[in-house]
Amino acid sequence: MTTTVPADRVSPAAAVRAMAAKTKPLGALGHLETIGVRLSILQGTLKPRIDKARVCVFGADHGISNEGVSAYPRAVTAEMMNNFDRGGAAINAIARCADVEVEVINVGVDADLDGLRGVRNSVVRRGTGNFTKEAAMTPQELDAALGVGIDAARRAHADGIAALGLGEMGIGNTTSASALLCALEGIRPEDAVGRGTGVDDATLVRKREVVSAALFLHCPAEPRDVLRTLGGLEIAAMTGAALEGSSLGLAIVADGFISSTAILAALHVACEPDRRVIARALFFAHRSAEAGHRLVLERCGAFAGVDSTPLLDLGMRLGEGSGSALAMCLLRAGAAVMREMATFESAQVSAGEHADEHGL
Amino acid sequence: MTTTVPADRVSPAAAVRAMAAKTKPLGALGHLETIGVRLSILQGTLKPRIDKARVCVFGADHGISNEGVSAYPRAVTAEMMNNFDRGGAAINAIARCADVEVEVINVGVDADLDGLRGVRNSVVRRGTGNFTKEAAMTPQELDAALGVGIDAARRAHADGIAALGLGEMGIGNTTSASALLCALEGIRPEDAVGRGTGVDDATLVRKREVVSAALFLHCPAEPRDVLRTLGGLEIAAMTGAALEGSSLGLAIVADGFISSTAILAALHVACEPDRRVIARALFFAHRSAEAGHRLVLERCGAFAGVDSTPLLDLGMRLGEGSGSALAMCLLRAGAAVMREMATFESAQVSAGEHADEHGL
Repeated sequence: MTTTVPADRVSPAAAVRAMAAKTKPLGALGHLETIGVRLSILQGTLKPRIDKARVCVFGADHGISNEGVSAYPRAVTAEMMNNFDRGGAAINAIARCADVEVEVINVGVDADLDGLRGVRNSVVRRGTGNFTKEAAMTPQELDAALGVGIDAARRAHADGIAALGLGEMGIGNTTSASALLCALEGIRPEDAVGRGTGVDDATLVRKREVVSAALFLHCPAEPRDVLRTLGGLEIAAMTGAALEGSSLGLAIVADGFISSTAILAALHVACEPDRRVIARALFFAHRSAEAGHRLVLERCGAFAGVDSTPLLDLGMRLGEGSGSALAMCLLRAGAAVMREMATFESAQVSAGEHADEHGL
Repeated sequence: MTTTVPADRVSPAAAVRAMAAKTKPLGALGHLETIGVRLSILQGTLKPRIDKARVCVFGADHGISNEGVSAYPRAVTAEMMNNFDRGGAAINAIARCADVEVEVINVGVDADLDGLRGVRNSVVRRGTGNFTKEAAMTPQELDAALGVGIDAARRAHADGIAALGLGEMGIGNTTSASALLCALEGIRPEDAVGRGTGVDDATLVRKREVVSAALFLHCPAEPRDVLRTLGGLEIAAMTGAALEGSSLGLAIVADGFISSTAILAALHVACEPDRRVIARALFFAHRSAEAGHRLVLERCGAFAGVDSTPLLDLGMRLGEGSGSALAMCLLRAGAAVMREMATFESAQVSAGEHADEHGL
């Protein structure tokens, strides 16, 4: 992580004051005002903008998928990478509609994807180890997977991206994310494990057993060991992207359960000043319908200064960065309000009398 | 109202089936799938699109504003019309950002706005009567105000607009909308009247007294009489736009409390087949922070077939069509998902085994 904490060029007080001067009752734009204020602080200007936004979709396979924890066969990871490449997936349709770039990165899909021109191949290994039997990764593999995300963040920064959304594809990865959540936060598998892509009751029970077994086998204490033994290659890549992207001043937009868990891992891995840098950059795109997401949001919120209110609540539970891409519209609107709205003074609009009591 | 109920060229079953075939677990895009399905039925195609969207902002003054029910002076209505004209208001900033057209229509602001090139002047009268003393409008004025909205919907249709958002500006209009809600649905003023632009406790009490007095004075029974005695010129215009726009096959996007109340009035005014036409076209942009909005949504939902789930929940309470403009991003995303996503078959992605039990 490039640890350069930039000094605030726009103080929180100055940003809040600027938003309060806009021609609207105080606080009347709700969360959109918070977005505008936060982007002003993050970008160090009272005229924030998100001209270019990108969602990175990290794909990888999971050893755990051999344990029958998903409604879909393992091959679907590679098949969906093909679908991304051809532009037919939800993330492609939503991103085109929302004017968001998509970068698809193969961190470890168990298939030969060299022929796909729209996929960046940065394969660490072809799928993690099955964590009911062995660690998901070696220390070197974890470093490499984190590095794939760090590189993606640096590339986005170099390309002039202002907001970086996180997305993923990996059959079995709700099981991996649930195991991470349990180990990082001491949560019971019954509370952390949900239906993922939509498994039946028997498979749900199996997912919980698999997570319990893995926690018993590894019982890791250090956050990096948690990520290494129970994580996924694409999850570690998202952790790296969040750490590096936030330090470069990008807005980081978490998607649903998996990517939010990668953020939670980043908050655990980071030391205190870096944690504040992540918190400052972080937006949660939406409230996922996946059971564990509520817990992840709560736990992220418990880290000082992390605003864990999701922007959207549409009952989505897809992944791929679909929520991140959609939320870019709201980040842009918040920036536009801060940047373009007139003030009561500049527009010669009479101010309210009692309007400052129910505020931001 | 041009009563042409178009026969469904795409059946609900066909639209749901088409969405289910897309490469994602069933229901995994949540409310976005509902939007795509509904737009397919509305537009009669499995490739729905919202190329052009528009928000009409209807402005008018209210006699009731002389009773001290707002935190802002009456002059603010005209001042904000100037602000809209210069592009400095929230609706301007959000609409530019969301690629939505804005049409500002003066239905009855108490000022000379002829010099504003960006405002369409369709003045019925300069502000309604004070409904604590007289009817807000005459029958002729109500017809004229409804007609302004009907014309706006026809213009939108002629201009190739696919989704029409409703917006308003009028100091005092939360009081008028609250009175409408009480009279249309038999709700007590204590439950319907909120803080609007942010009034203090004393003014809130006064607003409730004013509404109670008006209900006692007029006690209208017929929906049209409710709208005439207690409504606003801009509210009636929105009612007209909803009636006509839905019959022309446009998606109608309600904003917050005031415009949703105008929709509720349209549902009351319409006869049964037209009511279904409105219900089919109707989207609620967001859940307003204004107290009465929850009730309006519930009551609209009680009309058979009206989907009253708001798309956004950002604590906004501004009006101007700001929520409608923002929600256009979600309508467009829902259409894009339906129109552009590949199917499991076309993309050669393996289908899930147990994935059809937790669906749409």
